[in-house]
Amino acid sequence: MNAHIITIGDEILIGQTLNTNAAYIGSRLIELSIDIKKTSVVGDNEQQILNEFKECFNENDLVIVTGGLGPTHDDITRNCIVKFFNTALVLNEDVLKDVKSIFSKRGRQVTKLNEDQALVPKNAKVIRNKLGTAPGVWIEKDNKIFVVMPGVPFEMQEMMSSYVMPNLKEKLGEPEFVTTRLVLQTTGIPESFLFERLGNIDELLNGAEMAFLPSQFGVKLRITVKDKTTEAANNRLTEIEQKIRNKVGRFVYAQGEETLEEVVGRLLKERELSIAVAESCTGGNIANLLTNISGSSDYFERGVVSYSNGSKVEMLQVDEDIIQKYGAVSPEVAEQMSKGIKSISGTDLGLSITGILGPTGATPGKPIGLVYISICDINSCIIRKFLFGEDRLLNKQRATQAALDMIRKHILGIQQDD
Amino acid sequence: MNAHIITIGDEILIGQTLNTNAAYIGSRLIELSIDIKKTSVVGDNEQQILNEFKECFNENDLVIVTGGLGPTHDDITRNCIVKFFNTALVLNEDVLKDVKSIFSKRGRQVTKLNEDQALVPKNAKVIRNKLGTAPGVWIEKDNKIFVVMPGVPFEMQEMMSSYVMPNLKEKLGEPEFVTTRLVLQTTGIPESFLFERLGNIDELLNGAEMAFLPSQFGVKLRITVKDKTTEAANNRLTEIEQKIRNKVGRFVYAQGEETLEEVVGRLLKERELSIAVAESCTGGNIANLLTNISGSSDYFERGVVSYSNGSKVEMLQVDEDIIQKYGAVSPEVAEQMSKGIKSISGTDLGLSITGILGPTGATPGKPIGLVYISICDINSCIIRKFLFGEDRLLNKQRATQAALDMIRKHILGIQQDD
Repeated sequence: MNAHIITIGDEILIGQTLNTNAAYIGSRLIELSIDIKKTSVVGDNEQQILNEFKECFNENDLVIVTGGLGPTHDDITRNCIVKFFNTALVLNEDVLKDVKSIFSKRGRQVTKLNEDQALVPKNAKVIRNKLGTAPGVWIEKDNKIFVVMPGVPFEMQEMMSSYVMPNLKEKLGEPEFVTTRLVLQTTGIPESFLFERLGNIDELLNGAEMAFLPSQFGVKLRITVKDKTTEAANNRLTEIEQKIRNKVGRFVYAQGEETLEEVVGRLLKERELSIAVAESCTGGNIANLLTNISGSSDYFERGVVSYSNGSKVEMLQVDEDIIQKYGAVSPEVAEQMSKGIKSISGTDLGLSITGILGPTGATPGKPIGLVYISICDINSCIIRKFLFGEDRLLNKQRATQAALDMIRKHILGIQQDD
Repeated sequence: MNAHIITIGDEILIGQTLNTNAAYIGSRLIELSIDIKKTSVVGDNEQQILNEFKECFNENDLVIVTGGLGPTHDDITRNCIVKFFNTALVLNEDVLKDVKSIFSKRGRQVTKLNEDQALVPKNAKVIRNKLGTAPGVWIEKDNKIFVVMPGVPFEMQEMMSSYVMPNLKEKLGEPEFVTTRLVLQTTGIPESFLFERLGNIDELLNGAEMAFLPSQFGVKLRITVKDKTTEAANNRLTEIEQKIRNKVGRFVYAQGEETLEEVVGRLLKERELSIAVAESCTGGNIANLLTNISGSSDYFERGVVSYSNGSKVEMLQVDEDIIQKYGAVSPEVAEQMSKGIKSISGTDLGLSITGILGPTGATPGKPIGLVYISICDINSCIIRKFLFGEDRLLNKQRATQAALDMIRKHILGIQQDD
């Protein structure tokens, strides 16, 4: 089965909104080994939408469309469906009930605009919306499937999980061949160095495929194997993974899509370690990521965003003299911050970070991008120096990632520097 | 001039990487009133890339391609350019110099793989890469323009700003008609309520266009006016803006793409107010966003992520009895937290937040999504209660946005609740 994903909306075309929907749908379709040929974005323009429907429905077994189903005047997708399939709108009582129930839960009155969301194309199967008011539709014609869902990401995602995926699975039946994929996420090593450390790629892969996906968080390696059975494919994947880990295992922080903060959270939980963090330049982002994880209150005790020098002295027991002598961005202050946060919190680990993220703040000998990170346990403290780039927000993300990776390496007893 | 944006990469197609590049390029092209017809994503497959080049170059005046120019084996875009334009690769000495200089700055050796990045298609103009090793190319043929840039976002963005935009501007000359756009960002009011408060949309717009763009951060209104002169278009925009502000002005936090944290930062700076924040459920995200802004150290004094009850008592002077009596998620604790953080920091404003973001932690009478936010100044404290949804990360973003908007309304003296 091959597929095309269409996203509708001027806001995507002109870059006001990121196309997270196509990404999400893509990631789900490959779970079913569906071959995604292309994704496209068209604006809120009837003729362009109809052209795109036609071209994509001609060339693919499955077309998935999102966007333009809302209640306001600029939502024209439903009318395009009616025209494209030459059908009409009918009132769906179940959807009307859903709409009324959502508004009553929020303590708001249902308006005519909202009630109209219960009008759906005749002959379409309705995909009910558990999180919003616009329903989705599933249409089958000429042995092909045409699915339309609202553009609000969490509403669409719920529909994919509870309706579209199970129904596609049923349609597909048993697969002829199996594609398995493995993602290894690395951090702390540039793409070209990773490539070279891996040696002869063809020999390593032996017919499999591998992609290098660099970003500010590190380089993802995506390995793809096709084989006749899941077992055969998995065996080959495992063999390749082992070879990669033998060469660059220290830099691999996750297998699959687990984030570094999830890995760190899992490790802290498994080893029953608690942590507290003192952040200067990252301004709370390390605490923010650690607390994104449900259950993080089991190991994350507190955070301090000690942006001013006064707050470093008052809250983290940093010596004012040390700040005067070495500056707030120094290994000495980093060490005192990590010792201080550990001591006041009574945690097993204390992490600290201080640096200059730019664009201002550089001083002689201390360029933009200079960051010190320190981690302390009951026995000792280590301090690492990093030199990132010029961009404030990229630096914040890189520094946060580096700090999380220091925690990971510390817990696992892995050598810190490359 | 109409345009098509092509993004190359399996990682985009299968949703491992968000297509931020198409969004960025789209946002830049509309600055020049270039009409973006469509954007598409194709995988790392020579035949599909060549087909897409052909179709898009036939139908558009401008094609912009990103991705697949890196140094590793899965980067095949450069060879596709060579085939499509029936040309060859030649060594470019300037690029070779750039590559060598980048590696020497980072204290790393240049490898053969990196040196090969200096091979560029003959007859193409080279777009030098100031932040990485893969150069871009600009090709003109049959009065059309074909631009290819690397997929690493910050490298591509730099090339757009320093080369592509100025060159496109020169090509375009004086425009025949002018399109002006205005974005008003609202928060704290659902899409359908905003729509209804605006009344008769056709009357309001009088020939202009308006789109509603909802997300967890609020609803953006995008108004588009076409007219013969910039002045005429701007006058009509101003008139519409005024009408909208008269009806829902309280919910409008920004004009254009300014983020709420930028707005709040600007207001704090203008009024010379300092702030400190005490976060429980948002885990540092409010501090994180406030410190994303360069210069935030002028007004952001410190943050405390008081995740444990102990940290609320020890760091924020919250009464242990009050936590016992009312629970950590209560208006009473929120108020004490905001008073506490203001008092220990000596700032003009103290903000606090406590809530249950889920998926666990609900108790009888305290559902998931319940959040209290409090803001104190020298005179008084206000506390607001919010009820968000079920999803932890969405709740974190919504709660953060609500807290930032409370600061905004407080500084501007705007009524807090709707």
